[in-house]
Amino acid sequence: MSSEKIPYKIYLTEEEMPKNWYNVRADMKVKPAPLVNPGTLQPMTAADLAPVFCDELIAQELDNDTRLVPIPDEILGFYKMYRPSPLVRAYCLEEKLGTPAHIYYKFEGNNTSGSHKLNSAIAQAYYAKKQGLKGVTTETGAGQWGTALSMACAYLGLDCKVYMVKVSYEQKPFRREVMRTYGASVTPSPSMETSVGRKILAEHPGTTGSLGCAISEAVEVATSNPGYRYVLGSVLNQVLLHQSVIGLETKIALDKYGIVPDIIIGCAGGGSNLGGLISPFMGEKLRGERDYRIIAVEPASCPSFTRGKFAYDFCDTGMICPLAKMYTLGAGFIPSPNHAGGLRFHGMSPVLSQLYHDGYMEAVSVEQTAVFEAAEFFARTEGILPAPESSHAIKVAIDEAKKCAETGEAKNIVFGLTGTGYFDLVAYEQYNNGTMTDHIPTDEELAVGLAGLPKQPEL
Amino acid sequence: MSSEKIPYKIYLTEEEMPKNWYNVRADMKVKPAPLVNPGTLQPMTAADLAPVFCDELIAQELDNDTRLVPIPDEILGFYKMYRPSPLVRAYCLEEKLGTPAHIYYKFEGNNTSGSHKLNSAIAQAYYAKKQGLKGVTTETGAGQWGTALSMACAYLGLDCKVYMVKVSYEQKPFRREVMRTYGASVTPSPSMETSVGRKILAEHPGTTGSLGCAISEAVEVATSNPGYRYVLGSVLNQVLLHQSVIGLETKIALDKYGIVPDIIIGCAGGGSNLGGLISPFMGEKLRGERDYRIIAVEPASCPSFTRGKFAYDFCDTGMICPLAKMYTLGAGFIPSPNHAGGLRFHGMSPVLSQLYHDGYMEAVSVEQTAVFEAAEFFARTEGILPAPESSHAIKVAIDEAKKCAETGEAKNIVFGLTGTGYFDLVAYEQYNNGTMTDHIPTDEELAVGLAGLPKQPEL
Repeated sequence: MSSEKIPYKIYLTEEEMPKNWYNVRADMKVKPAPLVNPGTLQPMTAADLAPVFCDELIAQELDNDTRLVPIPDEILGFYKMYRPSPLVRAYCLEEKLGTPAHIYYKFEGNNTSGSHKLNSAIAQAYYAKKQGLKGVTTETGAGQWGTALSMACAYLGLDCKVYMVKVSYEQKPFRREVMRTYGASVTPSPSMETSVGRKILAEHPGTTGSLGCAISEAVEVATSNPGYRYVLGSVLNQVLLHQSVIGLETKIALDKYGIVPDIIIGCAGGGSNLGGLISPFMGEKLRGERDYRIIAVEPASCPSFTRGKFAYDFCDTGMICPLAKMYTLGAGFIPSPNHAGGLRFHGMSPVLSQLYHDGYMEAVSVEQTAVFEAAEFFARTEGILPAPESSHAIKVAIDEAKKCAETGEAKNIVFGLTGTGYFDLVAYEQYNNGTMTDHIPTDEELAVGLAGLPKQPEL
Repeated sequence: MSSEKIPYKIYLTEEEMPKNWYNVRADMKVKPAPLVNPGTLQPMTAADLAPVFCDELIAQELDNDTRLVPIPDEILGFYKMYRPSPLVRAYCLEEKLGTPAHIYYKFEGNNTSGSHKLNSAIAQAYYAKKQGLKGVTTETGAGQWGTALSMACAYLGLDCKVYMVKVSYEQKPFRREVMRTYGASVTPSPSMETSVGRKILAEHPGTTGSLGCAISEAVEVATSNPGYRYVLGSVLNQVLLHQSVIGLETKIALDKYGIVPDIIIGCAGGGSNLGGLISPFMGEKLRGERDYRIIAVEPASCPSFTRGKFAYDFCDTGMICPLAKMYTLGAGFIPSPNHAGGLRFHGMSPVLSQLYHDGYMEAVSVEQTAVFEAAEFFARTEGILPAPESSHAIKVAIDEAKKCAETGEAKNIVFGLTGTGYFDLVAYEQYNNGTMTDHIPTDEELAVGLAGLPKQPEL
């Protein structure tokens, strides 16, 4: 079909929306390495995971074989409230760039959580409800995941306890209030509510908290309160499964117009968005049906793919969770303050790590000020103020479109616009004032984190 | 068509989008009273208005006869970036309310300005650009209009000077930063940049500003700088014309499914949203083709329709603008602090005022805490955190749906969801903390504002 007929926004009808999630692991020849018990160094069983996670989610986590997982009707109903998300043809951006490339972005920000996180939040809350649980606990840093989970829990009438890194709790009161409006209890971490929190506060009375500490508190509350489980918004296989809805909708929309992407670009923190966006395309690539160039974009300040090590490591800085085999900078790595809070994770989804290791995708790192420059340009051109995380993908999409302008190639570039930046305006203010800086860790700084990797299992 | 087939969200295709704005004045038997020169008390001519407003916009302002005004292609292109906005069937809300009513809302919040204001901002910026102007000036209180205008100007490469009421500038730094990201200059008002600002600061050194003062500064800058004009986001006839796109899209979407609304509800501050939403329906009513119940909802703290007077008054508290005949509380009326900043205007669109006066619509006033209670319920049920302004309409839509639950009537209720509340979380925090209060002005308080009405013209 000719490009003249492609609308600014491609929306699927409700009938066209995917009815199944797609499990990319089913098509991987080398499966992602299993989660491992940090004590025994043996693979975690469903029984090992049951005190922490919901049963059905554990089954999804461990299932490397089922290709299509039906989306329950209740979740489909919730999806219809805020999905399908539009696949946008960036006509204005193309014109401003003077590029022959055709640029498309899948925009996941048109919901109150402001990001794609809601896709997995509703799934995880649903299975918790189905199991008859009272509630769930989680941690949040930047706040998008906590907001999404509180929305899902409000909808299902489930209790939601969010442990929010204290510095974020204080600096992002608006994120906190959205979660409270959705009925979640939001506790600054470390708190006096848990033994781990009390211990940390006794040792470090002035601490402003960390994601690792918040995870430890959320897990403790989940495992010590009957009827509660812990949920997580990224990294895990189950999260990538739920997020496959992004990529599936994208593919259906592209197929409707006969568009075949040449390059697919996504930002990568823990991997939830990237893994979801690329999944059906990666499936075709794994099955040898079609080839795509797939690019993960990460911040230069936290370069897990590009400068990390593929090894077993803890997912949390508190080192209480199972070990996962992934590209990691070490659980002890502390990235410099970087406003793309959602990309500050030291590790990476085991699925994506394996795919990257096996050569199915590329990775690049970009610096923060260049990212905000792209974000501002995009906002003024396409009318959407992007989240800092998403803007990493924008930066590389623009770079690729500029290359097309030089070569004259009319490539189809698809990128994931994961969310909006309405709660990130402190960072935009820094950029607007010219006070934003970049930080690229030295090899010595990276060596510190990598030196702390745990004993590697022999599987 | 049966209700089973109505999707959660009705999106028009690009081809179905309106190509013309609709001017409801063409169908009014009694036209809105003309703007009047406060000195001569004679109707303002195009020449009188030319130093302040763009020529084409003046023509639209004064044209009571042309029914359909073609939307220029450039504006249509911009509309396609963020429109059509969805008409949402509130299935989840209906279920939670246990009502047989069918509830629909036209959601205008899915753009970075966060509201419907963008519909007129791009039109006004376009005509300024077409006239060869360098830029436009405006004032902003809550910040939605200023944000919308800065987005439109960034797109067209037009300079944008926003005078932001100082108290908002300080309390809403995020709104300010969005505008700056879009390249607007944002000046806290009163400022030292204008003679009126300097005068006010000399007299009241500690003042935190007012909308009236910000208007005065914006008008002074527009009239004293070659190549600049002043633009306004509500009240004016031209704004209602541009905002008719809301109602036109709504009607096309309803017609697609054979749905005839029984009740149409919108919040009313200056009238931009309500006037736009109801326009095509009001047109049918004016032409005697069909009857609809149309309800304007205003805050009890600023009740122009329900307790104001239908008289000529200044639009600005600075009393430098033309007089408009409208329901007003008096330009000197100071509403109590109310977080629905967009509804704190003392007057009302002359078009809507005339229609209300002639019995074509109803008006009710609601109190703030009840509005936030409805907002929270809506957020938890429909997944969208609404703007306080929009929540006035939600409150009355819910009330009407509850009446249907009692009577068993399956009425079709349509309301305008003008925007999102992401920048209103200070108000939500007050509500969440239980510290929000209501204030209904006493008759004595209202008498003060009404006593200040200017000498009435004899036309």
